[in-house]
Amino acid sequence: MPPNTESRITSIKAHLQPAQNSDLQPRPTESLAAERKNPSFPIRELTYFVDGGEEFTKMNEQFMFELERDPAWKMDDHHNLTLPEVRERALRKIKSVLYDLANESPEQFQRRYVFVGLVDPGVYTRLNVHVNLFYRTLVGQATPAQLEFWNRKGARAMNGVTGCFSMTELGHGSNVAALETTATYDETTDEFIIHTPTVTATKWWIGGAAHTATHTTAYAQMVVKGKRYGVKVFVVPLRDPKTFDLLHGVNIGDIGKKMGRDGIDNGWIQFTNVRIPRQYMLMKYTQVTRTGEVIQPPLAQLAYGALIGGRVSMIRDSANFAKKALTIALRYAAVRRQFSADPTQPETKVLDYVIHQNRLLPLLAQTFATNFTSMRVTKLYQDLMKRMENARPGDDMTPIISMLKETHSTAAGLKAFCTWNCLNTIEQCRQSCGGHGYSAYTGLASLYQDFAVQCTWEGDNTILMLQTGRSLINYYQEAKSGGAIPAGVSYLKSVERSNTPRCPASDAASIAEFETILEAWSVVAGNAVKTATDIFEKSTSAGASKDEALESCAVERLHAARMHSFRYIFQKFTEAVSEAPGSIRAILNHLCLLYGLYNIQENAGEFLGSKYFDAAQMRLVREQVNHLCSVIRKDAIPLVDAFNYSDFVINSPLGRYDGNVYEAYFNLVKSNNPSKPVPYFESIIRPIHNADYSAPEALDLEIDE
Amino acid sequence: MPPNTESRITSIKAHLQPAQNSDLQPRPTESLAAERKNPSFPIRELTYFVDGGEEFTKMNEQFMFELERDPAWKMDDHHNLTLPEVRERALRKIKSVLYDLANESPEQFQRRYVFVGLVDPGVYTRLNVHVNLFYRTLVGQATPAQLEFWNRKGARAMNGVTGCFSMTELGHGSNVAALETTATYDETTDEFIIHTPTVTATKWWIGGAAHTATHTTAYAQMVVKGKRYGVKVFVVPLRDPKTFDLLHGVNIGDIGKKMGRDGIDNGWIQFTNVRIPRQYMLMKYTQVTRTGEVIQPPLAQLAYGALIGGRVSMIRDSANFAKKALTIALRYAAVRRQFSADPTQPETKVLDYVIHQNRLLPLLAQTFATNFTSMRVTKLYQDLMKRMENARPGDDMTPIISMLKETHSTAAGLKAFCTWNCLNTIEQCRQSCGGHGYSAYTGLASLYQDFAVQCTWEGDNTILMLQTGRSLINYYQEAKSGGAIPAGVSYLKSVERSNTPRCPASDAASIAEFETILEAWSVVAGNAVKTATDIFEKSTSAGASKDEALESCAVERLHAARMHSFRYIFQKFTEAVSEAPGSIRAILNHLCLLYGLYNIQENAGEFLGSKYFDAAQMRLVREQVNHLCSVIRKDAIPLVDAFNYSDFVINSPLGRYDGNVYEAYFNLVKSNNPSKPVPYFESIIRPIHNADYSAPEALDLEIDE
Repeated sequence: MPPNTESRITSIKAHLQPAQNSDLQPRPTESLAAERKNPSFPIRELTYFVDGGEEFTKMNEQFMFELERDPAWKMDDHHNLTLPEVRERALRKIKSVLYDLANESPEQFQRRYVFVGLVDPGVYTRLNVHVNLFYRTLVGQATPAQLEFWNRKGARAMNGVTGCFSMTELGHGSNVAALETTATYDETTDEFIIHTPTVTATKWWIGGAAHTATHTTAYAQMVVKGKRYGVKVFVVPLRDPKTFDLLHGVNIGDIGKKMGRDGIDNGWIQFTNVRIPRQYMLMKYTQVTRTGEVIQPPLAQLAYGALIGGRVSMIRDSANFAKKALTIALRYAAVRRQFSADPTQPETKVLDYVIHQNRLLPLLAQTFATNFTSMRVTKLYQDLMKRMENARPGDDMTPIISMLKETHSTAAGLKAFCTWNCLNTIEQCRQSCGGHGYSAYTGLASLYQDFAVQCTWEGDNTILMLQTGRSLINYYQEAKSGGAIPAGVSYLKSVERSNTPRCPASDAASIAEFETILEAWSVVAGNAVKTATDIFEKSTSAGASKDEALESCAVERLHAARMHSFRYIFQKFTEAVSEAPGSIRAILNHLCLLYGLYNIQENAGEFLGSKYFDAAQMRLVREQVNHLCSVIRKDAIPLVDAFNYSDFVINSPLGRYDGNVYEAYFNLVKSNNPSKPVPYFESIIRPIHNADYSAPEALDLEIDE
Repeated sequence: MPPNTESRITSIKAHLQPAQNSDLQPRPTESLAAERKNPSFPIRELTYFVDGGEEFTKMNEQFMFELERDPAWKMDDHHNLTLPEVRERALRKIKSVLYDLANESPEQFQRRYVFVGLVDPGVYTRLNVHVNLFYRTLVGQATPAQLEFWNRKGARAMNGVTGCFSMTELGHGSNVAALETTATYDETTDEFIIHTPTVTATKWWIGGAAHTATHTTAYAQMVVKGKRYGVKVFVVPLRDPKTFDLLHGVNIGDIGKKMGRDGIDNGWIQFTNVRIPRQYMLMKYTQVTRTGEVIQPPLAQLAYGALIGGRVSMIRDSANFAKKALTIALRYAAVRRQFSADPTQPETKVLDYVIHQNRLLPLLAQTFATNFTSMRVTKLYQDLMKRMENARPGDDMTPIISMLKETHSTAAGLKAFCTWNCLNTIEQCRQSCGGHGYSAYTGLASLYQDFAVQCTWEGDNTILMLQTGRSLINYYQEAKSGGAIPAGVSYLKSVERSNTPRCPASDAASIAEFETILEAWSVVAGNAVKTATDIFEKSTSAGASKDEALESCAVERLHAARMHSFRYIFQKFTEAVSEAPGSIRAILNHLCLLYGLYNIQENAGEFLGSKYFDAAQMRLVREQVNHLCSVIRKDAIPLVDAFNYSDFVINSPLGRYDGNVYEAYFNLVKSNNPSKPVPYFESIIRPIHNADYSAPEALDLEIDE
């Protein structure tokens, strides 16, 4: 095809004519800038309110800035790394924040830490295993002298002792009481012998075990003088800190590739008659004396207070990861254009489609709801911890135990409910970005893969929801018998009303009121708890054991916990709105109404079944949902701007603040030049191209010729 | 800690005592074997029925066997490979089936191909790009002489021409009409000039482009004599097949890491004034003569028949990938034990918990429903293709066009509905395996990552659902005006009844009848279509354009398409049950009832809102769902056994036929021995351990001293 110069010029001229519509399309940066022209509220005020105050916003900005500046935290090539490279980078990142861990207050470090997690969840977990599992177990379960011993060894900031947390076994997860690993006291040497008796007893999923840890807190069945005392915790040295050689009797392997969080080196551990000094057992509660006397604690439940912390932080994570996902999806939706009814007009922003608003904006409302709920539950948890720390021997522990139970039940259900919601939010955001959501570089795929484990670890979501359901049955029974129940479940006192309440609202305005919505959820959640309780009580009356009766109402119990969670979160959101500065109250009001009403719409069967709403009122609910979406759409970009995550934290070309989506994405991907020719060109490609698939040549001979 | 022999012996004796309960636990293999003792139906009969006949079951078994035997198809180390290794393995696997592609009938190869996909979805896609996108486009859009030309070049089985499919651009996905790439006819040289005018016009996501393809079918705006004719298809050579050097004007890069399907080398392509002979334009429909005369086809719609095929195959994929996921999750659930009310008894099988049954068994029913729907829609599609192929110039095309529309609308909605359902099924299965579901080696994480793209490609699910919703509005309007509508939507004729029908059933038995359930879905789907249509018509009456009116009812339109899909699939399932051999009819009957009733329960608001069921009847529905779960639970393992996927295809230690879950899983993971010490021991770990985080030494001096 020899080129013809004249025609070349003609054709180039033709190309200089823009493609259809493309001269009409505003630049991506202009599309996004336009969204910021008339926010209905002061963005900065909302940021302060979401963060819990101006000082925290400024602290967050400092943390983001410090990570971005640190060369160890290079993130733009993250998706191109191999598993070993990810692991090495992860530990380098951890090293870069250990100075802060050693020198900052725990409160400040935990806030810094949120950004460590938002930027690289694998790093967060690898550090978390040491800080919030291993070290927190020491703090919670060691005697003061034991804690001082481990602190002296360097357990706080990894300079001497790096810990992991050995609870789960290959065959045993949620049922901790059935763990198989044993810790047998040997009186002759004053040692415990830690042992893995079977394959299923192999410690499994142990984060940090494969590469990093020198010590572990191992959960094992304690045996003293032949008698079993249940599962206790022991510090077991794993490696020589100087050489990293495995210690005698310790066998460790790498769990290998996971769905996500590849930065953390999960491992498995088998102990074969590993001897540790008796005093390596953590003895704040149960104690074993030199002569093998076992002193059991009066209030074993207190040992489990520490577990709640992880769950509370996952409610916070659920809000924060959803903020990141929604920032990406909504900014992209304000830039991406598809279809135009009129070829003389630019294509329409995806965000202007009703269906896109309906998909993402209720999730945005839910994310604000989760954020405010998380702040309130954190407060509840901190109060509990303070009271537990301040308790002195001889104090009446009843109020603390009751507070512990309430916080435990609240945190369990919300951990499950919020992590499920967040995972769904991430996936909806990912899909809403179309094909680009499937690229690793746009960030939502890895967000999903990293986040998914939160639905399972530190309490499988289904089991946690069932636990909350069980507490609700207890509270309801307590309420029926006139007992005192916590404020968060006080609506259960009203379930036994003689007349089923019905919503009096006959127009959209009165449906869209906090009181109406809260009453609606109270009725529905109350009915759900009552239904579960009725089945439970019928079963016990028929002679079932408590466990059997709980099993008989499992479906209804889970359902009750879900309905309760909607109500609880809606209530927390309304409380936040009432405390908000006037300048941001209107937008928060819209978001709160959308949260409440959208979830009524999605659970319409509950509301119609309870007769709280009739079909006509339910239509009003739907109309209001559509209306609220259209109102909130105008502020969609200011709202995600208010989350205030820097481009470094967002780490997605689709979610950039400036909207320069396509160029940034192309530049990121452009670096992947395929090698030419590919390494398997001669060995596979050329043979494919030269192949002859015709049948082997037949012999034109007959045997008998 | 010097060992003391006597105490050692004592302690070892203690370890020989089994851990609590562990002598009571049956072996995993025994747990699974027990599930197979009394199936209520002949498993093999069900396999034949699910596969469409004994001959297909045997063919499938042969395909599985052939792949398993082929050394190129080594899969057990798949999750340990790097991206370049995965890419190389993928092409080696493709090479191993090209003989079959060249020599088998297309029907047979497509069946073989299903197993290629189930074992390695990345390989499937890489092959699919050539076979079902590139080559099918040639078959569908080339003239017979053009097709013969490309066949001679080796386009069928890659021996000469390896193709990719260049439709999507960086800035343009669903709206194909707005693609920016141009194909300008140069009359002086009888060539088209293919050109990428902007960054957003870069061809994007092009599977096979980065490493594999020598040619592409490029979709571009055709410009002849300065006039635009819309998007047409052109074969563009990309690389020299001998050297694999990029041809003049072609620039290609690698799209890099994705959420899944890493075996396929997606790339981007930019054309800079690339010249191709005019005859490389595919001219079955639109033709361009030597002198630049453009002959437009009378029935351009016919060109889109080929698109339907991909969607139909994704309905099938949705059934098949769900079968794989459920086989893993249910077999594991029959082995895994957690909690025991009585310490003298073994822990309970997870599958025996009501909540686990309620989570997985409705998905099992849905998978059978999808399987049978897929078989029926495939038949519909094959009939259409046959009629289109047999059509001769001058034939009345009206019935074919009507059939095309119906099949298009059905396939679009079901592709969306079923891929969403399957993705959810995979994730539910993954989470139901607890922590082990997060391991790459148990197979469900990668299943999710590989499958997720099906919700987006070849038609974004949301857009497809909206298209089906639009067709439903058309059909309903047609029905109202007394016109003829296809059987699959004939229920729309009954929407305008004077009395809203209500279910007469007052006991569980009559609720659990096919007729009752189908009528219920007809009422609900009919109402949903009516609601969408009412809004649509109100908008047009108020002066809205058709596009605006469709946008005004988008939420209701999507909803109508969902409700219609439930009804459609339930009906297809009942048809399959009625054709099933007597020996398997009872179990299929239970599954079909569970499918229908479970989804009524999950969409209770629709049924209560339409007043078809009242609250008391809805309670009967819930009771029946629980009852059916408990009945089907007994056959859960025989049912997944009937899917008849070999351990090689399942490729998960949790899903093994023999139930030897823990040993197999441990052996698989055990090969990941961490190197000792890790490569970054000296550079990172040792400095962490030796770090001193105290403040720098202060000078005990004052400036003014």
